[in-house]
Amino acid sequence: MLRFDSDYMEGAHPSILQRLTEINFNQNPGYGTDAYCDSAKAKIKAACAAPNAEVHFLVGGTQTNATVIGACLRSYEGVLCAETGHIACHEAGAVEVTGRKALTLPHHLGKVAAEDVKQYMETFYGDANHDHMVFPGMLYISHPTEFGTLYTKAELESLHELCAAYHIPLYLDGARMGYGLAAKGTDVTLPVIAQNCDLFYIGGTKVGALFGEALVVTNPALLPHFFTVIKQRGALMAKGWLLGLQFDTLFTDGLYEKIAAHAIELAEKLRNGFAAKGCNFYIDSPTNQQFLIVEDTKLETLRQAGISFSFWEKYDAAHTVVRFCTSWATEEASIDTLLALL
Amino acid sequence: MLRFDSDYMEGAHPSILQRLTEINFNQNPGYGTDAYCDSAKAKIKAACAAPNAEVHFLVGGTQTNATVIGACLRSYEGVLCAETGHIACHEAGAVEVTGRKALTLPHHLGKVAAEDVKQYMETFYGDANHDHMVFPGMLYISHPTEFGTLYTKAELESLHELCAAYHIPLYLDGARMGYGLAAKGTDVTLPVIAQNCDLFYIGGTKVGALFGEALVVTNPALLPHFFTVIKQRGALMAKGWLLGLQFDTLFTDGLYEKIAAHAIELAEKLRNGFAAKGCNFYIDSPTNQQFLIVEDTKLETLRQAGISFSFWEKYDAAHTVVRFCTSWATEEASIDTLLALL
Amino acid sequence: MLRFDSDYMEGAHPSILQRLTEINFNQNPGYGTDAYCDSAKAKIKAACAAPNAEVHFLVGGTQTNATVIGACLRSYEGVLCAETGHIACHEAGAVEVTGRKALTLPHHLGKVAAEDVKQYMETFYGDANHDHMVFPGMLYISHPTEFGTLYTKAELESLHELCAAYHIPLYLDGARMGYGLAAKGTDVTLPVIAQNCDLFYIGGTKVGALFGEALVVTNPALLPHFFTVIKQRGALMAKGWLLGLQFDTLFTDGLYEKIAAHAIELAEKLRNGFAAKGCNFYIDSPTNQQFLIVEDTKLETLRQAGISFSFWEKYDAAHTVVRFCTSWATEEASIDTLLALL
Amino acid sequence: MLRFDSDYMEGAHPSILQRLTEINFNQNPGYGTDAYCDSAKAKIKAACAAPNAEVHFLVGGTQTNATVIGACLRSYEGVLCAETGHIACHEAGAVEVTGRKALTLPHHLGKVAAEDVKQYMETFYGDANHDHMVFPGMLYISHPTEFGTLYTKAELESLHELCAAYHIPLYLDGARMGYGLAAKGTDVTLPVIAQNCDLFYIGGTKVGALFGEALVVTNPALLPHFFTVIKQRGALMAKGWLLGLQFDTLFTDGLYEKIAAHAIELAEKLRNGFAAKGCNFYIDSPTNQQFLIVEDTKLETLRQAGISFSFWEKYDAAHTVVRFCTSWATEEASIDTLLALL
Repeated sequence: MLRFDSDYMEGAHPSILQRLTEINFNQNPGYGTDAYCDSAKAKIKAACAAPNAEVHFLVGGTQTNATVIGACLRSYEGVLCAETGHIACHEAGAVEVTGRKALTLPHHLGKVAAEDVKQYMETFYGDANHDHMVFPGMLYISHPTEFGTLYTKAELESLHELCAAYHIPLYLDGARMGYGLAAKGTDVTLPVIAQNCDLFYIGGTKVGALFGEALVVTNPALLPHFFTVIKQRGALMAKGWLLGLQFDTLFTDGLYEKIAAHAIELAEKLRNGFAAKGCNFYIDSPTNQQFLIVEDTKLETLRQAGISFSFWEKYDAAHTVVRFCTSWATEEASIDTLLALL
Repeated sequence: MLRFDSDYMEGAHPSILQRLTEINFNQNPGYGTDAYCDSAKAKIKAACAAPNAEVHFLVGGTQTNATVIGACLRSYEGVLCAETGHIACHEAGAVEVTGRKALTLPHHLGKVAAEDVKQYMETFYGDANHDHMVFPGMLYISHPTEFGTLYTKAELESLHELCAAYHIPLYLDGARMGYGLAAKGTDVTLPVIAQNCDLFYIGGTKVGALFGEALVVTNPALLPHFFTVIKQRGALMAKGWLLGLQFDTLFTDGLYEKIAAHAIELAEKLRNGFAAKGCNFYIDSPTNQQFLIVEDTKLETLRQAGISFSFWEKYDAAHTVVRFCTSWATEEASIDTLLALL
Repeated sequence: MLRFDSDYMEGAHPSILQRLTEINFNQNPGYGTDAYCDSAKAKIKAACAAPNAEVHFLVGGTQTNATVIGACLRSYEGVLCAETGHIACHEAGAVEVTGRKALTLPHHLGKVAAEDVKQYMETFYGDANHDHMVFPGMLYISHPTEFGTLYTKAELESLHELCAAYHIPLYLDGARMGYGLAAKGTDVTLPVIAQNCDLFYIGGTKVGALFGEALVVTNPALLPHFFTVIKQRGALMAKGWLLGLQFDTLFTDGLYEKIAAHAIELAEKLRNGFAAKGCNFYIDSPTNQQFLIVEDTKLETLRQAGISFSFWEKYDAAHTVVRFCTSWATEEASIDTLLALL
Repeated sequence: MLRFDSDYMEGAHPSILQRLTEINFNQNPGYGTDAYCDSAKAKIKAACAAPNAEVHFLVGGTQTNATVIGACLRSYEGVLCAETGHIACHEAGAVEVTGRKALTLPHHLGKVAAEDVKQYMETFYGDANHDHMVFPGMLYISHPTEFGTLYTKAELESLHELCAAYHIPLYLDGARMGYGLAAKGTDVTLPVIAQNCDLFYIGGTKVGALFGEALVVTNPALLPHFFTVIKQRGALMAKGWLLGLQFDTLFTDGLYEKIAAHAIELAEKLRNGFAAKGCNFYIDSPTNQQFLIVEDTKLETLRQAGISFSFWEKYDAAHTVVRFCTSWATEEASIDTLLALL
């Protein structure tokens, strides 16, 4: 079976497993107070050109989102996000469980438009009764988005300016960050993100790690006593060095971007292959998630050949929108096998 | 440096790392829907002689406690526990963050006495105003306790009967379960625990796994839609098979109890060695945590030789209570080194 | 100044104040355990033809909604409601503060359509990933709605059937219930509501009381230990007899419907008056809230004459939608004054 | 029947009911934005000699405590209080429902000792693992306490200094404030309280009002957007002017202290009467709650004569500790009747 369902189906980059095996019997202090975490944090801050940032390691994306949003906002504040934002749809209400409300905006292929934020703000503060409503207290965006799309540097800057003007933090969910950084034509780098976001996380789970997300807080005043908050949300690993070691490895010699670039190359090959077979694209995605409009008969052929992928939605009577993902672990031969079946 | 501070300082049993490396590029479905999880669950249910139980894998102990207690109780219910219980002291209020209150009982070397529970219940229901108070809705115990002590089978049965009589579930925190099962002279086995507890978890983090706790629910009606609850508490791993693989390994050929027995043997050696040097014991612990009353001068010698351990409390002007832990990973040579320094 | 902004601008029906004054120095037991509460509950159950229902008295609408929804739902469940539902917009996220999520449906002049609920349910349960999402666990409707509109008996029955089929309770917010019951042409009575809703409240604050809402629970199993929940949400009055006395008065000799009918008559007079002056209606409301499209120049005249009303939204360059409310306390002379000014 | 159970058994001071009746048909804007609230706030600030304070009106005591504590603390902070503090025992876990933990201290006849607070703080910050524990983030005291006792000015000042040194607010629950201010020999006045507390509330429910508590915040930065928080906790009254009117009346011409002084005089009469009959006192209380050790046979006589009081605890085989309360509404003749029965 060949799985293109998602980008978290394999384990970790072999160099992570190798180091893990090497140091397995070394003794490390607990809860992220070890040398690997220190080293990884230093490397991440350097990669972000953000020497004054704080870095925290958490285990997963939903956990990171809920912990950050719950801790950063007060009870009278909610988090603005695209109606398609992961926190609004597919995280089982984890934000609401912390007592905070997701305030949804229209999406543009998964992206939030600065004009929509501006209008929301003006309408909210223009309403004489806004004290009876949840205050917009943060803007959440994902990059890449749930549709594989990317913000431009200019778009991030606009959102950042707007957030600054309204004194709310900008938080970027980078579960698939590596694939965004490695995309062709993007002008968004880690330093650009660090300059424009108050908080963001660099996804490990989907980009080479067994698990783990690195939260970067460029405005540490937003998260006082965050260690304790991480603990009380059940997000603190006893063996925190497992996270440090993984991110230290990923941020040594540019491994993180290197393995993401591999996924992008194979996504492009997959894309061109489908295009050559006459498939249309539902979304023009420059990242590792490809949304295709495929004839149902072809999909059936693929299924029978043991290919798996994600159902997105029905397109018309004879076609379906499906998602194929590549990842740091995808082999070129797998793409060849797939394309040969079309 | 030789660390006896705790039992989560090393990585995982080598057979776990080996399997992890072997299957690293296999593709697995996400969120614990994989074959490793299925296999591990079956083995755990067999080891517990509890064919109708449900098993869930979570990442850490605080996370498991807060997720279970938050999900199992209604807002008007709190959780009874020893005043020394981990949830009452050292989990940063994670239970309260879920909106539930820890209701403390006196402790007896970390254990809860059935008479104390009974008296709490009688006082509570005897109070005409108890509707203005938090209902005792669950009993939480740890086995081994935070003091390394163990319940007997008869004690577990008494607590179980009492809980059943008051219609509240009995929940057992088994973060160090393996070391309890392997202790000399105990009559508490996994089936005994399964027969007497409505919910309990088998600790992996401290007993051979990189991380992970296996929650066993013998009364599954207590946790409806628990998958979604796990998700919304940020406790669901994308690569859930990492947990399945680890527990599948630990529950194959009795590995879990075997490696725990090793820790117990070394704890005994450590214990006898200290006793031979004239040290007294603060608590008579049959498990891997040893609480010693040591002369301060001796402790200073140890520290200077690079030995680390946990401070517990001052005993008198010249002595201190300290905790030494062994684990599945402790080498006999380390104990020899330690004892030679005394 | 003459205020038509809302229906909670005056105190209470004089017979309430009179009884309050009469019994002021009588001593009553606390927390709603008094004879007035008992009597009021019996009268409300009789009026609802629901002898097996439970009745609880709370202080205000937002409080009642959040307390009921928080208590009735488990953490994995959210509450379906119209996007214009009061809980979704104007209660400052009180539902989310309890950890529950409002799941919004399109609205039809404030009403929820059974087809929309059905489609939501089918889409939700048809989604293979629905365990990663918040379960629809309750349907919230308001009657009259925030737009002054009313459900028909047939519509309530459809919603009820649908909810029963999906095993979720139907909860009706009756903050303005009296004005709905007294509307011309409605076939919805209190017994009809009690037959079709699992929980609903009869609003006192806006219909003759100083404050207070009577929650009727036709399915009491939904709210175990609700007294304690009311207490812990800060919704329990020490002098609970204040609530009992008010509702006992309102439900004696049909006072509640009588004073609501007065408001409806004056709403009709207001409506006809505006129509006679050539005003159009934004919504065809049979209840005490009237939504008018009025020339801005006319509104300015009214304002200068000391008339207040609610701004709703701009209609076009020269017109605005405004809301005028009548209430149990409105005097006919006030309507005359208003109409004379047009 | 004559009730001495508690101090919330009657309605309101007649001058409140009279004004309520007078203005019943006046129209007021909602949610506390009316002239009565403004006037009451000004009078309260003047009585407290705290011109820069903010005043908010809430409905009840548990509600006020949970709303203030939940809003003021962050999730990693708990509230220190006596183990006998109302929030720790008799408010059904309302503090925990907001996600905050009550951290208990020993009590001294209901009072918190500065030394105990100091020791708690030193132990907490001296513990190397305190980041794994709930931070003490506020000190809660009640005045009068649940035992009718009072702090001295010097004691309040010590607690205030200590709180200031540790940068945590001091919050005083004044549910029975009036009876404390009117006690003989106290040197604690409203200005003294305002100088030493960051937040406190002046109880209305038990001292002359139908309901209502006036929260005074001398450090308003502690409660940003508190209007919205009040709303989302269900504590905002639509007819907020009901609260303003009551407190405006109570703080006109010293009515509040005058009616409290009446209760104190009758408490003294009751006290002397019991003493004359040979009864001992369980606690030496200078306020309206009197704790007596009474022979069981005498209690039975009282009960049969229709006198009610609160059971506190059994004292010995033949005696019981009981509580008798006077209030602003108690008549001297009732005390005479009571004493005659002894």
